[in-house]
Amino acid sequence: MQRPSSKRDDSKELEALGLAIRAVRKEQGLSQEALADQAGIDRSHMGRIERGERNVTILNVLRVSNALSFKLSELFKRAEL
Amino acid sequence: MQRPSSKRDDSKELEALGLAIRAVRKEQGLSQEALADQAGIDRSHMGRIERGERNVTILNVLRVSNALSFKLSELFKRAEL
Repeated sequence: MQRPSSKRDDSKELEALGLAIRAVRKEQGLSQEALADQAGIDRSHMGRIERGERNVTILNVLRVSNALSFKLSELFKRAEL
Repeated sequence: MQRPSSKRDDSKELEALGLAIRAVRKEQGLSQEALADQAGIDRSHMGRIERGERNVTILNVLRVSNALSFKLSELFKRAEL
């Protein structure tokens, strides 16, 4: 089974999730850096997550959704996933 | 920032997700092996995902939810996440 490349994980679902995170962040008036810090995620990793370039793990998405006070299911619903 | 150990990722959220996957799988009368094969996921990895022992990636949860004909948001809602 071919492991997705670790450098850059292209998928429309990851892009949709990243766009949803970015939209909710902006609605809350947060900068990407502030969200990264609140979520305890490296700032450059946060940028790649928002651009949909990372096959992010559940616990990291959970950190982001918690920092946005969003349930995981709501965040995925927002991303239409 | 301390990376969760790669050997075994304990978290109640991962356990809740694993239990939800198992419950939906059983409702559909699928064996764990059949779900793993349909999802294109290694069978032992599938077992660890159901036991909540893996900080699974979004694309792998997506493979499982697709194999169960469940949207990601529905699966996370089922897990009360």
